[in-house]
Formats: sequence, C-alpha cells, structure tokens
Amino acid sequence: MDYNDSGVHTATHQAALAALRDTIRSSFGEEVIGDVGHFGGLYALPGDPTRALVATTDGLGTKVKFLASLGLHERVGRDLVHHCIDDIAVLGAKPLFFLDYVAGAALAPDTLEPLIRGFADTCVEQSIALIGGETAEMPGIYEEGTYDVAGFLVGLVEREKIVDGSAIRPGDAILGFPSAGLHTNGYSLATRALFDTECFRPDEIPAGMDATVGEMLAAPHLCYRTEIGAFHAAGATGFAHITGGGLIENLPRILPGECDAVVEKRSWPVPGIFDLIARAGDVEEKEMYRVFNMGIGLAAVIPPDRVGGAIERLGPEAAAPVRIGTVVEGSGAVRLVDRR
Amino acid sequence: MDYNDSGVHTATHQAALAALRDTIRSSFGEEVIGDVGHFGGLYALPGDPTRALVATTDGLGTKVKFLASLGLHERVGRDLVHHCIDDIAVLGAKPLFFLDYVAGAALAPDTLEPLIRGFADTCVEQSIALIGGETAEMPGIYEEGTYDVAGFLVGLVEREKIVDGSAIRPGDAILGFPSAGLHTNGYSLATRALFDTECFRPDEIPAGMDATVGEMLAAPHLCYRTEIGAFHAAGATGFAHITGGGLIENLPRILPGECDAVVEKRSWPVPGIFDLIARAGDVEEKEMYRVFNMGIGLAAVIPPDRVGGAIERLGPEAAAPVRIGTVVEGSGAVRLVDRR
Repeated sequence: MDYNDSGVHTATHQAALAALRDTIRSSFGEEVIGDVGHFGGLYALPGDPTRALVATTDGLGTKVKFLASLGLHERVGRDLVHHCIDDIAVLGAKPLFFLDYVAGAALAPDTLEPLIRGFADTCVEQSIALIGGETAEMPGIYEEGTYDVAGFLVGLVEREKIVDGSAIRPGDAILGFPSAGLHTNGYSLATRALFDTECFRPDEIPAGMDATVGEMLAAPHLCYRTEIGAFHAAGATGFAHITGGGLIENLPRILPGECDAVVEKRSWPVPGIFDLIARAGDVEEKEMYRVFNMGIGLAAVIPPDRVGGAIERLGPEAAAPVRIGTVVEGSGAVRLVDRR
Repeated sequence: MDYNDSGVHTATHQAALAALRDTIRSSFGEEVIGDVGHFGGLYALPGDPTRALVATTDGLGTKVKFLASLGLHERVGRDLVHHCIDDIAVLGAKPLFFLDYVAGAALAPDTLEPLIRGFADTCVEQSIALIGGETAEMPGIYEEGTYDVAGFLVGLVEREKIVDGSAIRPGDAILGFPSAGLHTNGYSLATRALFDTECFRPDEIPAGMDATVGEMLAAPHLCYRTEIGAFHAAGATGFAHITGGGLIENLPRILPGECDAVVEKRSWPVPGIFDLIARAGDVEEKEMYRVFNMGIGLAAVIPPDRVGGAIERLGPEAAAPVRIGTVVEGSGAVRLVDRR
C-alpha cells in the first residue's frame, strides 16, 4: 500500500502546484522575501527595513476526522496552533496572532465549544492573540458528522535573524528532535492500514506495545518553539519542520543547492506505531519515510562546535535531540543511509 | 422555508460562539485593539505606536460548491480575495498579503490550476502578495467531487485612520453600494429554494428576467476597495461589509450603542434574484433580509454634508451609491422600515 492507495495523490498534486509557481510568483512585489516553498511566507514590513512579517496556513489533514471520532475536539485546536507555530518558528519568527477557519456539515455546540476552546487555550499558553475566526455550516460539501479546520498564524522576525538555511555548510550536524507520533501527517494512509486493512480497534493495545492504537494516533503535534529558540541563539544554520513529505521532502526546503543531507536512518529510535503501520499496510520503507516523520518532528542543522552550547541552552527538562546526520557536498537532496 | 431548513443553523451556532467570547478574549494581550466582532481583527504593530495589522479569514459558504458545479473554479479564488479585501478595507486598512487553504475529497489538476490562478490573478490586480497556501486531499471528510476554500488576508492601517464606527452620530446618512447578486451568502437557502423546491435549471431564464439562474447565482463578489477609499478620504464615519446576516446583523457591528440605523427598505432596487428565491422557497421577508444582502454589498455611514464630496471622489466611472437610511438615537439596532 502507498499514499496514493489511501486517496492522497501527492505526485499529481505536487506537479500541478509546481506548474503554478510562476503564477504565484507574479503576485510577489519587492516586499516578498525569498521564494515559494518556505515553511512560512516572508513579507518585508512596509516602512521598516529591519523587520518582516511571517505567515503560514495549515490544516491537520485527516487527523481532524480521527480526533473528532474520539471526541477530542479540544486537541484539534491545540494541534493546529502548534503546527502553525512550528512553521514560522523554524524561520526564527515570534508568533503574534492566529485566526481559525472551521467548517463542517453541521457544527453542534458540543463540537464547536471544545474546538474553539482548544484554539483559545493554546493561544493563551503561547501568548498569541486569537483575533479572528470563521465558522460555517456547509451541508453538501462535508460528509455528515465531519468538519475541517484551517489555521492562519502571523509572526514577526528581525530580518537579520531570519534562519532560512542559506548559511548551512558541509560538515554541519543534523540533529533530530523526537516527535510525539504522526503529528499531523499520513493519517489517511495510517487509518487505512490499521483500521481498514488490519482491523485494529482504536482501544486495542497491539502486541508488544504499551498504548492503544487510538492513543498513539491521537498523540499531540509538539510545539518546538523553545527548542528552536535555544538552537537559534546558539547559532543553528537551519530548521526543518518535518511535516507532509517527511525528512525526505522537508530537509531540502532549507538545504543550499550545493549541499546534501546524509541522514542515518537507524540513528534514532523509530516509534513502534510506524512499524505497526508499515506492517499492517505492507508499506515500503521508502514510502514510510516519504509520508511520515518517523519519529523526528524537527530537524536542526548546526555547526558541530555549537551543538554543546545549544543543548546547554535547552535546559535540563527539555527532551534531548539526537544526532541523525551530517551535511555534505551535494545538490540539495536528502540521502537516507543505514548507519555506517 | 428559512435558513435553518437548508441545514444552516445560524441561531444555535451564534449562541455557541457568543458563549465562547470570553474564552477568545482571554487570549487578547494589550496589542489587540477593540473587541471580538469587527470585520477584521486589529493588532497593534509591536514597537510601532502609529500602525496596526488587520487580519481576516473567510470562506465562500456553499457558493464554492455552486461555482465548482459550473466549472467556475477561477471565480472561487477571485470571490474569496474580494471578500477578504472588503472585510479589512471597511476598517480603513490596505491589504498586504493573502494565503489560501484549499481542501477536498480529491484535487484534480484541472480544478486546482484555475482555482489557484484565480487567487494569484486577483492578488496581482490588487497588488497583494500571495505568500502562502495549503492544499490537502482529505478523503472521507469532503463529499466526493467537492472542495472548500478558506482565505486569509493581512493588511496594515495607520491607527489614527482606523474607521470602526465609533464616530457615527445621529443624523449621519447611510449609503448603500449595489452588490452584484448574493455575493457569498445564503447559497444553501438559495439553491434549496431554486433547484430543490422550484426545480429551476441553472441554464433557465426565469420569466421576466434577462439572465439565467446560474448566471445570477454565479455573479461575483464585488471588491469595494476604491469606493471605501473615496468615502474614507471624504470623512465617512463607518463602513459595513454586508455579508452573512445581511444589513440587519452587519450594520450593528459598527453602530455605537446609542445609535440605531433606520433603513428604508424600498429606497433601492432589490435585484430580481432575491424575489425569485423568496417566491421559490416561500421565504418570509424578514428572513430574506437576515440571510441575504438584498442588493446592498457595502453600507457607508457619513455625515450628510460630506456625501457630495465623497461621491465626487468616486469618479465618473464608479457605481453611484444610494441613500438607504439614516442614523438616529437608539440602542445599536437596525430598524427596517417601509419608505416614509
């Protein structure tokens, strides 16, 4: 089974989007910094040569349906805010405000209330203002009992502190920060493999594991704001938020054209849920690394002599990152290798 | 028939949202200007006492399904950008950048291409940068063949030029700018009445009219940026973008607590499509004014002695607004009256 079999046509889809890049670029005035493809869009603040606005929009993919099926609406809001924060934090930006879009076949108060509370509470925790939102009931577009969410986050960054990977050099270390699970990617494939093919129940504890399938799939999208801040201050040269496309497609978003990332795939413990999905759906290893984060939610690139200082800044309570690879001369690609 | 019958539960929905206002407010730091309920959210630009960011998020409701059914994907993008511009322009803001979220059961290239082109081309026309977007295929959430869109627009405003209605006084004139049709509201009710109850065909020209039902329903959401700019410069005291909730619910968003808006409902020509919907669905007049814009896409409030100057600034090519009412002493409500 691959992603295509679960109804998600990544290749067709990305080809269509690639063809549209020139159209999108035609809207760029001189205020837009960089090109299409950053984790967040960068826009020079008019009348202020030192700062830029950063904006991103995200959804949760079909994780939203999975969480909703378990009644975990509050977590939908939380996951989406975290996802958006990670997308702009990797550029060095501080988040300012968030807006949510919620639409569904019908939006009952007992769905809407925890959902919006999830957005608001997470915004409070992160000192982000929830300054707008739209909710819409759209019968005939959403399947009965389902809804979707989109989040929009705007942040601010000092232009000289933007981290976009351009300072990455051969020899830099690649460190991986553990994810809590799938975060928000690959749920169509995962649920198809686990529930439709293998017939697990969400409340079932698979052999040899210590959590239910439902608990593992409902694990939150982690917010790496603190970790990025520490590594940024210590001189990291790039951060990649590992979302759809996994390490294989997200690391190249920050790699200079003359660098490759060599990632040693047995250098970190891949959480059991991924192996469970691979076996249940007979998914090839390469496809697993292309669809899922495989246990790494954030990759930081940093010269080796700065790693110690960066980890010190994390403080004793933070989860320690793992060295997962090295930057070498190349052509902007990721090479997944077995541990040498 | 009313809006509820078409599957849109406005009252339940708004009660749930009202209960959440305190939760949302708890995320407001001192940067947030004003309260929940503006057309756009206002956020003081950090480190700049003179300017504020303004942001909005919108969708097209079930108009997106109607336009898609006619293959008018490009217009989806156009309508959504226009809708967002109007939401922040009414506060006096200049739009900077836009992001789109597109999700559907499947997103074929021949849908995605014109859709994104609609966003990009409209952004180019309006000097807005399209700096981000997310597209997602979400089988099992969207009904087959359908998709939804959400737009997100950020603008900038000089704080002393924010128009929020607080300067509205009894005696001010209320002018209405014509809409091109339903804009982006009431499509669930309209299509239920016209196609399900009355069985019109989209390519049918109803008796006494000169356009097909499909053409009238596909009419674009107008962008009032130029008109708002002219009236703003001439000293208008408030602008209301007439979207969901019609004049009845949108004018109060800018009315001071001690003012009512008296709107004379026979003072402008209501386009025939609204009468057609009312007859087809046996919709009461009050419900029509609560769901639809009834021919007014934008209301401007302005002292009577400034009206002449404002219209002069519009230039000869602009559609002239119609005087539709007057601000009187009251309690923040709209009174729809027959022409006196």
